[in-house]
Amino acid sequence: MNGIRTEIGYTTPDRITLRGRDLATEVIGKLDFVQTLCLVALGRLPGAAEARMIDTLLVTAVDHGLTPSAISARMTWLGAPESLQGAVAAGLLGAGERFLGTVQNMAELLLQEGASLAADADAAAMAEHARRIVAACRSAGKPIPGVGHPIHAQGDPRVPVLMETASANGFHGKYCRLALALGDACGDDTRRVLPLNAAGAIGAILAEMGLDPLFGRGLALIGRCAGLVAHLIEEREQPVGQQVWNLVLRQDPRNVLP
Amino acid sequence: MNGIRTEIGYTTPDRITLRGRDLATEVIGKLDFVQTLCLVALGRLPGAAEARMIDTLLVTAVDHGLTPSAISARMTWLGAPESLQGAVAAGLLGAGERFLGTVQNMAELLLQEGASLAADADAAAMAEHARRIVAACRSAGKPIPGVGHPIHAQGDPRVPVLMETASANGFHGKYCRLALALGDACGDDTRRVLPLNAAGAIGAILAEMGLDPLFGRGLALIGRCAGLVAHLIEEREQPVGQQVWNLVLRQDPRNVLP
Amino acid sequence: MNGIRTEIGYTTPDRITLRGRDLATEVIGKLDFVQTLCLVALGRLPGAAEARMIDTLLVTAVDHGLTPSAISARMTWLGAPESLQGAVAAGLLGAGERFLGTVQNMAELLLQEGASLAADADAAAMAEHARRIVAACRSAGKPIPGVGHPIHAQGDPRVPVLMETASANGFHGKYCRLALALGDACGDDTRRVLPLNAAGAIGAILAEMGLDPLFGRGLALIGRCAGLVAHLIEEREQPVGQQVWNLVLRQDPRNVLP
Amino acid sequence: MNGIRTEIGYTTPDRITLRGRDLATEVIGKLDFVQTLCLVALGRLPGAAEARMIDTLLVTAVDHGLTPSAISARMTWLGAPESLQGAVAAGLLGAGERFLGTVQNMAELLLQEGASLAADADAAAMAEHARRIVAACRSAGKPIPGVGHPIHAQGDPRVPVLMETASANGFHGKYCRLALALGDACGDDTRRVLPLNAAGAIGAILAEMGLDPLFGRGLALIGRCAGLVAHLIEEREQPVGQQVWNLVLRQDPRNVLP
Repeated sequence: MNGIRTEIGYTTPDRITLRGRDLATEVIGKLDFVQTLCLVALGRLPGAAEARMIDTLLVTAVDHGLTPSAISARMTWLGAPESLQGAVAAGLLGAGERFLGTVQNMAELLLQEGASLAADADAAAMAEHARRIVAACRSAGKPIPGVGHPIHAQGDPRVPVLMETASANGFHGKYCRLALALGDACGDDTRRVLPLNAAGAIGAILAEMGLDPLFGRGLALIGRCAGLVAHLIEEREQPVGQQVWNLVLRQDPRNVLP
Repeated sequence: MNGIRTEIGYTTPDRITLRGRDLATEVIGKLDFVQTLCLVALGRLPGAAEARMIDTLLVTAVDHGLTPSAISARMTWLGAPESLQGAVAAGLLGAGERFLGTVQNMAELLLQEGASLAADADAAAMAEHARRIVAACRSAGKPIPGVGHPIHAQGDPRVPVLMETASANGFHGKYCRLALALGDACGDDTRRVLPLNAAGAIGAILAEMGLDPLFGRGLALIGRCAGLVAHLIEEREQPVGQQVWNLVLRQDPRNVLP
Repeated sequence: MNGIRTEIGYTTPDRITLRGRDLATEVIGKLDFVQTLCLVALGRLPGAAEARMIDTLLVTAVDHGLTPSAISARMTWLGAPESLQGAVAAGLLGAGERFLGTVQNMAELLLQEGASLAADADAAAMAEHARRIVAACRSAGKPIPGVGHPIHAQGDPRVPVLMETASANGFHGKYCRLALALGDACGDDTRRVLPLNAAGAIGAILAEMGLDPLFGRGLALIGRCAGLVAHLIEEREQPVGQQVWNLVLRQDPRNVLP
Repeated sequence: MNGIRTEIGYTTPDRITLRGRDLATEVIGKLDFVQTLCLVALGRLPGAAEARMIDTLLVTAVDHGLTPSAISARMTWLGAPESLQGAVAAGLLGAGERFLGTVQNMAELLLQEGASLAADADAAAMAEHARRIVAACRSAGKPIPGVGHPIHAQGDPRVPVLMETASANGFHGKYCRLALALGDACGDDTRRVLPLNAAGAIGAILAEMGLDPLFGRGLALIGRCAGLVAHLIEEREQPVGQQVWNLVLRQDPRNVLP
């Protein structure tokens, strides 16, 4: 037991220290947001390619329209517009096992099941390995994270660009290939297409980068936080919350609105 | 009434559109996080100086040690380590009127009370204007946002570097000067020093930049989200939650721990 | 400064004490939920009529269908079914200024504006007093809490039964009469009906009971917590979350679902 | 697919219906809180013994001093006193796998592993069954829910009174006996005492009552909600939040407070 302290930072009346650096003279205005994020969360500055890749993962998580997170945030604002933090929190609370949290699950699955895989395994070996993982998950009754999407049923448009960006930054290797093979194997198995989705691709890239899967889940929360702020600024100017409520009520003819 | 829609984005089976741009071909890998944030939240890309300044505001909000937000997040993780989103949300919920939310209040106060001020008002006029604002707040029983700090009682070390960064990027004008004058005026008035704090300086910079104060409060949430993720990664590896709980209980001698 | 301690309770290895009572021998199985709630929150047991009235206020807050709170909770469950607490929290976060929080605002307004009113003021004096309050709120640009309802536009069906229950328990006096008069006065003023709603009636009853308005807001949260648990149990069995999401997306023809 | 509707309730301009009953004429003032909770969550009124037992479970969950939940809620209030709902939500978010959520896990474990057990199994058979469950959990690397307590290391004082209340209401049978045996078996196995705790006893009682384990977890949230409201009312009157913050900071000598 080391006592109650954090290596993240400490403070005195005239100085704030972040991971050993003076916040005022060595961080603010000197490091950018992605560098500062890595400094506090990983305890080190990122390399240039790593920083670009992390930045891309944040961007990918920002938003895509009226998601359940955005609906929850706007419903919360409808009742409590005094609390931006409350509406953002309500939106983030849905980032769990089924949505953004899958980036962590996918990274963990790949790290565990793919560690023994040779870096230069050929396509046939990769496909065979993926089929074994799918079969093992199925027989254990466990979901396979990172595949399929309710809207992008034939393929998630974010996956190719994520894989390209990973390649361009030197982070496309066996885990990305295994993840793509998992998507193919799920399809074989269920007779319907269940291709890799964006969360799955992000999980694979996290594994390639050697980053902590929990950090990856954190990136998804930070990026989504930005998207939720955008939704709430729009909700204040062009509110749809009341209309969403009315719309939902009207689906049950027993509800009668004036 | 415009129907239920958001200008932030929409989606089809093979395409996600963000503010009119194709997410896969025009955003991911093309725009960085600050640009994407401005695109979704403000509906436009930022200028170069604006982007640097917004990046600095995000960095400033990240963290400074075991704040109430961090304690709340770690207490939550102690009971519910299965939910990173829950612990982050618990931390963000404290970003209200008294802490991070003050950036919004300060920006709004300055925009309202400083609009009539000439851009080149001299120091005496500025001081006089600040004294009138302080007097008006006091007589209305309203707190003056953005001044004083429980730890940095003689001056917040982040304020000078924030002001320098604002100057370097062309965002240091009458609102920053008025904010500094407000800190001085509070000191005069109460016989103790209540200098401008970081939240106050950020509020002033937001006013200079012409940004929506609610967006500024959103920046504080996004930055703090990064800091909370860092705390929770550390809590998993080197937990202090149980020790904090014991420490708090031991302050009351009626509690007896084994 | 009294040190860090709570009068609510303390604990030793073999005993838990709640407001001076032994939890195991004097509370569990001896006091019911409403008594225990009063004991911890107010520091005393309620009288019989008080307990009945508080019970009724809890019941009133439980639920009424697919409210914004319930929609938010179900949207959160859709992404994070591993965390009942997260979905309940997301639902409670909307209980703010505009919805359940109004019980506190109404109680505070009545206590402040009605203190000087004679207990036996006649109807004309009451109406005149209400008109002055409405005029003062309007000229200060402040909303009048507890009046009007988007669905129950001609009158909230909960108000008469709340007032009857208040009468039956000895809690119907000048504050309830003033609250009803406020609803009438708002109608006079705006040329449309804005009668007292349930939150307004509850606020008035809290004032009659001499209870802390913040405790009243707390009752609303506790009652609503029960309703949210019910919604989430149903959502697990007969989920509507995905359908709500699809329904919302389909309102914008630019969204195309498979 | 049944469309978007809830069996919990619906509303018209002059009527609110809860599970088929008129809220104004058949619920408010007619049913008490526990009855209303069962009506909305279970779709039926409870029997008299069931209602007493559920009431007792709510009471047990209310509070026991400065728990992590209470600390989190008070830390949140320190920064955002404008939002009671936010501080309550922050406290509830810690009711996860390790703390209150264990009532659900225990009930599920008992229902799964104890279904085949004869109602009149003798003590030896019960002990043997418990040892097998403990061994199976250990070999699968799964935690055993509902045993052990950091403070009540030799035995949780709430367990005997919960078991007595269960007996008095006809809910003490094989699941309660198996739960107690599990506590004994954990002790045998680890050479230290790990007796049944309150969450474990509640889980056993839920199994006896045939209630949905998720409903049991919901009861814990509702009860705890009451305790958190009490803490926040006290925090407003006799704040300890700032002192807790200072206390935590002072544990690391690198932090210097004025």
